[in-house]
Amino acid sequence: MSTDGVPQRTGDNLDPWYANYAERASGLSASEVRALFAVASRPEVVSLAGGMPFVSALPQELIQDAMQRVMVENGPTALQYGGGQGIPELRAQILEVMALEGIKASVDDIVTTTGSQQALDLVTKLFIDPGDVILAEAPSYVGAIGVFRSYQANVVHVAMDDDGLIPDALRATIARLRGEGRRIKFLYTIPNFHNPAGVTLSAERRPEIIEICRENEILILEDNPYGLLHFDEPVPNALRSLDPEGVIYLGSFSKTLAPGFRVGWALAPHAIREKLILAAESAILSPSSFSQMVVSEYLATADWRAQIDRFRGVYRERKDAMIEALSEHLPQLSWTNPNGGFYVWVTLPDMLDSKQMLPRAVRELVAYTPGTAFFADGRGRHAMRLSFCYPTPEAIRTGVRRLATVVNGELDLLDTFAGTGRLQLPAAPDYGSTPPSDLR
Amino acid sequence: MSTDGVPQRTGDNLDPWYANYAERASGLSASEVRALFAVASRPEVVSLAGGMPFVSALPQELIQDAMQRVMVENGPTALQYGGGQGIPELRAQILEVMALEGIKASVDDIVTTTGSQQALDLVTKLFIDPGDVILAEAPSYVGAIGVFRSYQANVVHVAMDDDGLIPDALRATIARLRGEGRRIKFLYTIPNFHNPAGVTLSAERRPEIIEICRENEILILEDNPYGLLHFDEPVPNALRSLDPEGVIYLGSFSKTLAPGFRVGWALAPHAIREKLILAAESAILSPSSFSQMVVSEYLATADWRAQIDRFRGVYRERKDAMIEALSEHLPQLSWTNPNGGFYVWVTLPDMLDSKQMLPRAVRELVAYTPGTAFFADGRGRHAMRLSFCYPTPEAIRTGVRRLATVVNGELDLLDTFAGTGRLQLPAAPDYGSTPPSDLR
Repeated sequence: MSTDGVPQRTGDNLDPWYANYAERASGLSASEVRALFAVASRPEVVSLAGGMPFVSALPQELIQDAMQRVMVENGPTALQYGGGQGIPELRAQILEVMALEGIKASVDDIVTTTGSQQALDLVTKLFIDPGDVILAEAPSYVGAIGVFRSYQANVVHVAMDDDGLIPDALRATIARLRGEGRRIKFLYTIPNFHNPAGVTLSAERRPEIIEICRENEILILEDNPYGLLHFDEPVPNALRSLDPEGVIYLGSFSKTLAPGFRVGWALAPHAIREKLILAAESAILSPSSFSQMVVSEYLATADWRAQIDRFRGVYRERKDAMIEALSEHLPQLSWTNPNGGFYVWVTLPDMLDSKQMLPRAVRELVAYTPGTAFFADGRGRHAMRLSFCYPTPEAIRTGVRRLATVVNGELDLLDTFAGTGRLQLPAAPDYGSTPPSDLR
Repeated sequence: MSTDGVPQRTGDNLDPWYANYAERASGLSASEVRALFAVASRPEVVSLAGGMPFVSALPQELIQDAMQRVMVENGPTALQYGGGQGIPELRAQILEVMALEGIKASVDDIVTTTGSQQALDLVTKLFIDPGDVILAEAPSYVGAIGVFRSYQANVVHVAMDDDGLIPDALRATIARLRGEGRRIKFLYTIPNFHNPAGVTLSAERRPEIIEICRENEILILEDNPYGLLHFDEPVPNALRSLDPEGVIYLGSFSKTLAPGFRVGWALAPHAIREKLILAAESAILSPSSFSQMVVSEYLATADWRAQIDRFRGVYRERKDAMIEALSEHLPQLSWTNPNGGFYVWVTLPDMLDSKQMLPRAVRELVAYTPGTAFFADGRGRHAMRLSFCYPTPEAIRTGVRRLATVVNGELDLLDTFAGTGRLQLPAAPDYGSTPPSDLR
């Protein structure tokens, strides 16, 4: 587009507007998980990378029936704008869902959102000025780190072990940061079947974490998409159940029902909830009436608890397949053994770099998420996240076998070159930018 | 929640976290339109306030059929996460929609969003640092002003007349702001059937506006939800059709189909589009697969152009009813006479204040949106927006008759008190905070 006599825009050929972006835009970069979507979509690749629920296990006819009824009985309402807070019927049902983890709340304090990801975005928008600190487990959810970065937060990780976030580490981190004069805005935590670590915060530690945050006047952002997907005993009560004024709780129907509707929610202390609704209205006016009404109708008419039980059975079988395959083919590695959720966290020997190894894995037709995706500070090179949610047990066994070929090949190579200096493996290739909608 | 021996949080009783919000949170406040939602929902009130399309005019069976086919043929894909950019099939169909306004583009440069409101939010997030200036028509869309405020932009209004934005006013405003050393990030404009002003940017002015922005290296954000809803001749070609590298175009299915799906889009220059996708993924991971697929299936199988024609007929009849009623009952006022869209902008005599008058109007069972909602600088007290999109022609006539009672009552009152000093009318009451999902 050039017009005679009109000055051309400055900027470069690639982006004439590059000088115009907000400072925060520099925090937007493609995540490793995102790049992987393109790789993992090839049908011959066993993807242990994504976090997609196995929606084929859903009673599709019941969902269709719910849609049909919503349209026949309330079509014009379903097709119309709704309120920014979400429909009251669904919010009342969300109370029943949360009651399973000990939460008592008012329907007024729930805001339904476009997936709980949007709630994460809105809470961050509401609280984070550039440079503010957010505490998060080490490692933490890649999508949360991305949101926090997009508002120019500094994420500081806090150590975790098999019982979840370590209270002493939390205390020490807070003390250090306060000593440095830094402003801590909230603790972001995934207490149940942690993404990516696979561990659960023990019942004993929960009141202790609450207490530490209360003493230090630090808000808790409790992200709990997986809590109901336990394999054996249920998870301990939610942090929110222990401190209604100190916790913003995020929930989702993406894992217990289906992500395609994009229905999640935030439960927040009253004054925060007011601001959350305003932020939500500013961002999208109102969440989809239709999506909310279908989810509500499904909850009202289907045996959703039994369906969650079925999901537990599906995921448990897959988790067992993964752990057995790891034991058989990669006994030299260590991993977490989750009691629910979607993920196993695998630790590699120090000489292996999961990001550098990924191209070889893809050549062997298996994909995983490198550990670096889950840290804001460059750590995670010697770890990876394996997902067991989507592939069949058979595919999982195949995938882990392929992964063993890659890992053992790398170790052999390192043995061969031992003493010749650090072996430099090539960087991961560019997998393109458009994640396909149908991942395997 | 008090725990013995544990220090209580600072902050006040209403909000223990009040000291923790980000600076931008102070820009979040309830809009007049929002407060009105609660009022307008009472069935006895004729609301000329909202912007809800008349979805009852939709062929509901065709939409149900589309849903059913999506579920039967592609259920697991519809229920799953999708890509952050939106599904390719729908993006290809969006090209056909935009071609009606002269736009040629690549399917790669479209990002589907949770309504075009989300696109507005993402573009603002991408470009606005606190204090940056956004140019916007005087008046402008209340939801855009809200988003801009939420990212701490300064909105500077540019005068418009019956032919839309005035080029000389735009030149003068840019020169003044540049002289003050202020940083202008973009021009936000609604060229067609402006919300709230009801006017359309003339064909002659379009290249001139483009030229001014190009010379000054100012990006244009073209918001066009109503363009296809013309009553007589179609609108001139989109600004985007004249300068693909200088315009981000926002479109929506909320007015031409239904808002309940929350499907809108942005068409952006290539480099900006890349960042928009990252911002969208950060905000919500992916837009609803199900919603996008239903819209796509509807577009593929229904005669959507004929349906838009039917909408034109419905809205034209309602606009005519409103203009006739205004002419009959309020001949002393002036108003715009739109050739499409949803809104008429009414100018009151200087001694009337539309915000102060609103409680009386509601008592007379009619609601409107006070003009102040559409300005970032406090103007608009002597104007109001009347919507003709949702109520029937009969209800519109009743509403305008009631409005005339209120206006004439106020004028009589002012006459009575003439010479006794400025009459102080009471402030508008608090209408509560929860907008209902079913507005009238």
